[in-house]
Amino acid sequence: MSELANIGVVGMAVMGKNLALNIESRGYTVGIYNRSAAKVDQVMKDHAEKKLIPSYSPEEFVKSLETPRRILLMVKAGAGTDATIKALLPFLDKGDVLIDGGNTFFEDTMRRNAELDNSGINFIGMGVSGGELGALHGPSLMPGGQKEAYELVAPILEQISAKADEDGEPCVAYIGPNGAGHYVKMVHNGIEYGDMQLIAESYSIMREMLGMTVEEIADVFADWSKGELKSYLIDITAEILTRKDDEGTDKPIVDVILDAAGNKGTGKWSSQNALELGVPQSLITESVYARYISALKDERVAASKVLPKPAGLTEKLDREEIVEKIRKTLYFAKIMSYAQGFEQMRVASEHYDWDLNFGDLAKIWRNGCIIRAEFLQNITEAYDKNPELQNLLLDDYFLNITKEYQEAVRDVVALAVKAGVPAPGLSAAIAYFDSYRSAVLPANLTQAQRDYFGAHTYKRVDKEGTFHYSWYEEA
Amino acid sequence: MSELANIGVVGMAVMGKNLALNIESRGYTVGIYNRSAAKVDQVMKDHAEKKLIPSYSPEEFVKSLETPRRILLMVKAGAGTDATIKALLPFLDKGDVLIDGGNTFFEDTMRRNAELDNSGINFIGMGVSGGELGALHGPSLMPGGQKEAYELVAPILEQISAKADEDGEPCVAYIGPNGAGHYVKMVHNGIEYGDMQLIAESYSIMREMLGMTVEEIADVFADWSKGELKSYLIDITAEILTRKDDEGTDKPIVDVILDAAGNKGTGKWSSQNALELGVPQSLITESVYARYISALKDERVAASKVLPKPAGLTEKLDREEIVEKIRKTLYFAKIMSYAQGFEQMRVASEHYDWDLNFGDLAKIWRNGCIIRAEFLQNITEAYDKNPELQNLLLDDYFLNITKEYQEAVRDVVALAVKAGVPAPGLSAAIAYFDSYRSAVLPANLTQAQRDYFGAHTYKRVDKEGTFHYSWYEEA
Repeated sequence: MSELANIGVVGMAVMGKNLALNIESRGYTVGIYNRSAAKVDQVMKDHAEKKLIPSYSPEEFVKSLETPRRILLMVKAGAGTDATIKALLPFLDKGDVLIDGGNTFFEDTMRRNAELDNSGINFIGMGVSGGELGALHGPSLMPGGQKEAYELVAPILEQISAKADEDGEPCVAYIGPNGAGHYVKMVHNGIEYGDMQLIAESYSIMREMLGMTVEEIADVFADWSKGELKSYLIDITAEILTRKDDEGTDKPIVDVILDAAGNKGTGKWSSQNALELGVPQSLITESVYARYISALKDERVAASKVLPKPAGLTEKLDREEIVEKIRKTLYFAKIMSYAQGFEQMRVASEHYDWDLNFGDLAKIWRNGCIIRAEFLQNITEAYDKNPELQNLLLDDYFLNITKEYQEAVRDVVALAVKAGVPAPGLSAAIAYFDSYRSAVLPANLTQAQRDYFGAHTYKRVDKEGTFHYSWYEEA
Repeated sequence: MSELANIGVVGMAVMGKNLALNIESRGYTVGIYNRSAAKVDQVMKDHAEKKLIPSYSPEEFVKSLETPRRILLMVKAGAGTDATIKALLPFLDKGDVLIDGGNTFFEDTMRRNAELDNSGINFIGMGVSGGELGALHGPSLMPGGQKEAYELVAPILEQISAKADEDGEPCVAYIGPNGAGHYVKMVHNGIEYGDMQLIAESYSIMREMLGMTVEEIADVFADWSKGELKSYLIDITAEILTRKDDEGTDKPIVDVILDAAGNKGTGKWSSQNALELGVPQSLITESVYARYISALKDERVAASKVLPKPAGLTEKLDREEIVEKIRKTLYFAKIMSYAQGFEQMRVASEHYDWDLNFGDLAKIWRNGCIIRAEFLQNITEAYDKNPELQNLLLDDYFLNITKEYQEAVRDVVALAVKAGVPAPGLSAAIAYFDSYRSAVLPANLTQAQRDYFGAHTYKRVDKEGTFHYSWYEEA
């Protein structure tokens, strides 16, 4: 009998292939399967020397694996995942572990986990972040499902994952039951939308309000990346802004790229879920909307010709001073965005009964994933100090940043508003901060209105109970 | 054989009872039924002289109606609606018309319309706005479903609905197939959230930034209600702010109402759907989030003690001048909110294949409903002039308002941000305006980042096609 593979990977598109190669590089034999045989053959041809076992049918594939079987699904999320599970299921045994590493909506993972659990098959929904290169060299992994099934795959996942620069810890941890892993990945992606939008607005303010060139802005981001903003997204922004068009014009590449941003839906899911759970999550949502409005390119071009422009700023701006204020504003807004994202996960943890460990989440995002940043070490430490922290803003480190930076944020947002540079994310950041630190909000008026026209009742500030006012009787 | 009723109403809670009485007052005989008999008896006792026919079982109720039967369901949305339909169905005949006037999610209406259509039963989902008093004296009605079924009920609906002040036209029109009516009601409610939030922020800026008393602010709203802001919500705001506590303190009632706003979910649905359809709808969404953050009262009170306050404004403000700028800002922001809401309905109309008539929608909101306002006459006229109008902002009337008011908006938002008064809705308004009028947005950088880390490709400004940049090769 030939050697059995230690683990199998279904789906030989770039993410599945790269994860298979990553696993193989750690000394494992990997079974590979793809619905169309050509992709399997291509991988075998390109990597003839590697310990890969090709299969050409679900049955052959399952039989090529040692038991309990560990199978990583890297197929198109949705119907593709269901079809793959259905094809494999007749050949699986109780105790086998399926791992869905696709871009799956967490509610689908909850359903599949429950359905398969009835057959004794373990199902792990695993968020994978880091793109193609991350998959090959070390991604951040967010697995959720049966705890005992996680233990069966933990050694492999710890080896293939990225490692934190700070302490060498693997960027993977057990997230929680059923859909917890895919949920956390969804929020990660939402936060990624937020980070990208805040960077875009900062760039835009420098360009439109300060009149800086792309090259000058590239230098600013390169500089920022040496400080507390140090992160993958700031790094690649600096890099992107130095690159020239590869199609013959001499322009910076950003100037020939159409300003219409696409999306794969995870930011949208994140915002829809925040709305469902009752969590204020304005930064991610504004970032999603910013992509939507960017997509209306033709409408915007037409509107730009008729809608009025602002008079513009009258004061003379000190470029160096404002750039430093923009840096502070970006960092402050990033803190607001993460405070909202972690708040969303805190509420979700209770709502779905997941018992999430927020310190672990910050830890495994320190490397490998798109939002990796020095900053996540500060979040890790905040939750180390206080695992029950209600809101990131209340941690000393973040509290001090808000103390030092809030005036700069107010200056920058006010200037952008007056200059007419759209800053929906930065504006939402200061509005969230000011709302959260307000002991009294005008929602008392809102409640009075609701009671007036809909008899929805209200509570009082000075005593318990539910009250309704006789609005239609004279006072 | 006794007289048959012209129409039946199921559900004798206040909305159902008031609609039944409204219909009866127009000369119709109305059959009434409620699952618990006590409510039917109470209505009969309170209105012994009216042409009401009580029933105590679904069968008796259906048999009390002339054919084709017209039955208005005013029951708790969700399982209650399904249970009521199931109870009535055995006694219905082909061609009968069920009208769901509940607060129903439009996708449920689409499902029920399709299911009942298979049995030849017509199903109309009808949005009803105006609260208890509107139901009794004249609501705004938004019926969607089979067109031919609408014709069977149109004479009654036109009689019971509110009438526009401008031309006496009834505030009801056929909206479109299946879920169109409940959809439009959902967006109406979202817009209502927006109106309420923008009013709350304007109130808050006057109170916190200008130091005005509740009485002074009441006078301002009363004054505003005489001009272009004239509307139900401004009227009741002025009224609310004059009212004193009815529980013994001598305070304005708003000052004893807890600032934690509730919601019934329609604003949330509206935002979730905008996210689903890819429509930027930041004003309604910020309004929903503002309610969510208001509900975190204990957290906010705790945060207010540790988070830093702004230094505050240094300039001396001219109260009268700023109040007028706030008025302009409120009107401008309201226009942005309606522009987004109508844009959402435009996209929905195509997406769900409803062929909505936007002029009709503005018309039927001119009276009866919570968002009734003079302003809706301007929207009516904009769509009369151009039924294909892509965005309200491009209509001359609204374009001129933005020209005249935009600088005031920038001043007020900048002041609020510097003063630390949260203004998420007003900030979102100017950000949307500035985004929509920007021929170029920084989404080119976003697309470059997406292409960098995820090979998501991009389009170019200067030629057709889809491109990917070799980021990992040296330039």
